[in-house]
Amino acid sequence: MQRIKMIVEYDGSAYHGFQRQINAHTIQAEIEQSIYNLNGERVSITAAGRTDAGVHALGQVIAFNTGSSIPPERWAMALNTKLPDDIRILASQAVTADFHPRYSALKKKYSYLIYRQKQGAVFYRRYALVNTEVLALEEMQRACSILEGTHDFRAFCASGSPVTNWRRTISSCVLLQQGIFMRLDIEADGFLYNMIRIIMGTLLEIGRQKMSADNLHSILASRDRAKAGPTLAPQGLYLHSVDYPSY
Amino acid sequence: MQRIKMIVEYDGSAYHGFQRQINAHTIQAEIEQSIYNLNGERVSITAAGRTDAGVHALGQVIAFNTGSSIPPERWAMALNTKLPDDIRILASQAVTADFHPRYSALKKKYSYLIYRQKQGAVFYRRYALVNTEVLALEEMQRACSILEGTHDFRAFCASGSPVTNWRRTISSCVLLQQGIFMRLDIEADGFLYNMIRIIMGTLLEIGRQKMSADNLHSILASRDRAKAGPTLAPQGLYLHSVDYPSY
Repeated sequence: MQRIKMIVEYDGSAYHGFQRQINAHTIQAEIEQSIYNLNGERVSITAAGRTDAGVHALGQVIAFNTGSSIPPERWAMALNTKLPDDIRILASQAVTADFHPRYSALKKKYSYLIYRQKQGAVFYRRYALVNTEVLALEEMQRACSILEGTHDFRAFCASGSPVTNWRRTISSCVLLQQGIFMRLDIEADGFLYNMIRIIMGTLLEIGRQKMSADNLHSILASRDRAKAGPTLAPQGLYLHSVDYPSY
Repeated sequence: MQRIKMIVEYDGSAYHGFQRQINAHTIQAEIEQSIYNLNGERVSITAAGRTDAGVHALGQVIAFNTGSSIPPERWAMALNTKLPDDIRILASQAVTADFHPRYSALKKKYSYLIYRQKQGAVFYRRYALVNTEVLALEEMQRACSILEGTHDFRAFCASGSPVTNWRRTISSCVLLQQGIFMRLDIEADGFLYNMIRIIMGTLLEIGRQKMSADNLHSILASRDRAKAGPTLAPQGLYLHSVDYPSY
């Protein structure tokens, strides 16, 4: 028995998220089925981030145990021959039995992409939020730095989430304007349910000057989801990468 | 009665090309249906380029006659409320009764986009050809300049096409390497069926050094489709813009 870690890229547009569900087309089910088609094994994969419907990944990390004789580094190429073309394995390697994509992770990095012009928008419908409003970029950037650090992010967590500890540490939160794109890069030890989509929704309210960056202090202190901004659409969100201790 | 010209952008992925067909989802049918939904008129639109299934447009030009009282410049915004989000009207204006999107055109410009790395390819499946081969760029660029000018392009026309005059003038043919993209920009007084996809397929053969740029002279002279390279996939092709005399 061998444990394999893989880095996976996918276009989430056609899927009901990562996690296997009854009667739904998911990334997990698709990868597990492709492994079965490759070598006849029924494996159960675990992932670093259980991305929602429509959310994309540039560097999702998965792991599973296999009795197969396929060399660990060859798994990526072999599995790509079975996967649909909206899921690609970028790399594969052997890891120790105790490696867990989620619990072993030190940090995860997500990006949220906004497309800032009408022209060309048809090509970004699935890959960005299209927003052409005038936005106060510097105030939004000031808000990002207020979010950095360790806080109770309950106000930025979808209600109904089963977690009981809302404390997370955002090690980096940076908003960039790059040509026709605005992109949020956010790195933390973990994220609450819908946290980044709510943060980005709140940043847009600040950009519209409906809120000021300083309001974030009272929003965080309130621990009240209703005080933060709206949850933005999933198609702008990308699981960028996951950091692990070196093995 | 008023004649309206519109500039249209679309993601061709979900359509069986521009032109109306029985039992097929086409751009033309979608726009005509949206005009009907907007004001109850059954119009027939004509376009500058009858793009094939999967081909995109940044600046397709269409025209139609209407008895509607919608001001010409308002048509764009009004029709966008009825169109699906993969078709957008970028601009609308009144034109004289003799304006024809195809026959009045002086030049058309198309682009063919190639995505040159494996990472990120899932996001370009519908919007570019993914090709990561080593290619001899300078030789391909030399080939582009040989194609410029007036030639009989029969060797670059899909067989079975009903045209009888294969002479066209390419006023500009430029291949650019820009970061992870390679892009062909080609401008001519008109294009034959599949001409750009065959030209790009031939340029790739030259890039692979299976042909030299100088072979183009004998390929053109042969007027034989079998001498040119393969027809590339439609999803890399964009109708960029159409030039008209000033009205």
